[in-house]
Amino acid sequence: MSKAIPQPVTDLIEALSRLPGIGPKTASRLTYYLLRAPDELSLTLAGAIGDLKAKTRYCSTCFNITENDPCPICADTHRDRTQVVVVEAPLDVLAVERTGAYRGLYHVLHGAISPVDGIGPDDLKIRELVVRIQAGDVLEVIIATNPGMEGDATAMYLQRQLAASGVKVTRLARGLPTGGDVEYVDPVTLLRAFEGRHEM
Amino acid sequence: MSKAIPQPVTDLIEALSRLPGIGPKTASRLTYYLLRAPDELSLTLAGAIGDLKAKTRYCSTCFNITENDPCPICADTHRDRTQVVVVEAPLDVLAVERTGAYRGLYHVLHGAISPVDGIGPDDLKIRELVVRIQAGDVLEVIIATNPGMEGDATAMYLQRQLAASGVKVTRLARGLPTGGDVEYVDPVTLLRAFEGRHEM
Repeated sequence: MSKAIPQPVTDLIEALSRLPGIGPKTASRLTYYLLRAPDELSLTLAGAIGDLKAKTRYCSTCFNITENDPCPICADTHRDRTQVVVVEAPLDVLAVERTGAYRGLYHVLHGAISPVDGIGPDDLKIRELVVRIQAGDVLEVIIATNPGMEGDATAMYLQRQLAASGVKVTRLARGLPTGGDVEYVDPVTLLRAFEGRHEM
Repeated sequence: MSKAIPQPVTDLIEALSRLPGIGPKTASRLTYYLLRAPDELSLTLAGAIGDLKAKTRYCSTCFNITENDPCPICADTHRDRTQVVVVEAPLDVLAVERTGAYRGLYHVLHGAISPVDGIGPDDLKIRELVVRIQAGDVLEVIIATNPGMEGDATAMYLQRQLAASGVKVTRLARGLPTGGDVEYVDPVTLLRAFEGRHEM
């Protein structure tokens, strides 16, 4: 870059540009914002980024991100230990928790099978899930991988892996999103909604 | 937030949400990205944020952000010391530098006059500009504040403050942006283009 930009500014712009969805323009804007903002913001941010990995780990049961192992959900004796929702990522756990309707446990795969990206079953927490199911009290595994090619492939793989265990394996329904509009919905979603139609 | 989220994760989401243009959703996405990314990225980012303020300062002449005082532009003996472009922010200096056509100096105001936001002339580097112009070799001050209400108010204020110094005060032309389309341009810009029309 031009010598009009000091090195520490260039360094931060480059580091921020490595984050997903942040291009060089956004990175410059954020950097110059931090320059003008109170020192406290930079300190808080640098500290929080430093603590993020240092103070968190995977739960050894469900592989969600946690400060303590086991995580608060796995440690909660009031939760239903017969159901396990399988998700791709920690943010999916949050989404399910926000419904307020699910009282069972989770299992975080940390990705989905994607041959294009070189991600196979061994790169995910699938073996750990199979072992966990064989070991125990679980009656139903609810697969909540993303609706899409990779999530579908992962769901099918899981179903085959879990077949021998005799546990019930279900998958979240596909159909019209609530508040959506039939006129504007994409054809694949509409097709799935037809396939999944039920008597009223 | 839910107990499904460990504190270090919440802390970083909150800190990132304080940045402009980053809402809670983007902040979560970035946080969970950092959790999955190699430690090196978090370390680089935390380091770069820490260094940003620690290793930079304002140039005591032009008030651009710099590692060394005076900044490389002010220190460059090959630049034309008779012209000063006045801008609102350091990123504006970069924009002018990118044209490759300007060889003079700069003055960064660090904002624009905005009564709504409680920003008056004393909050900007205006007095420093007046002193700088009185002191010296400058023949022309080119005002390059943003085209808009606040930039216009700032430009008018500067013009009055600099009138006594006898220096030539100019402002960047307003008109149609190159590559723009008369059909889609906003009315104010079109009006300015009419006002600024010149014989061919």
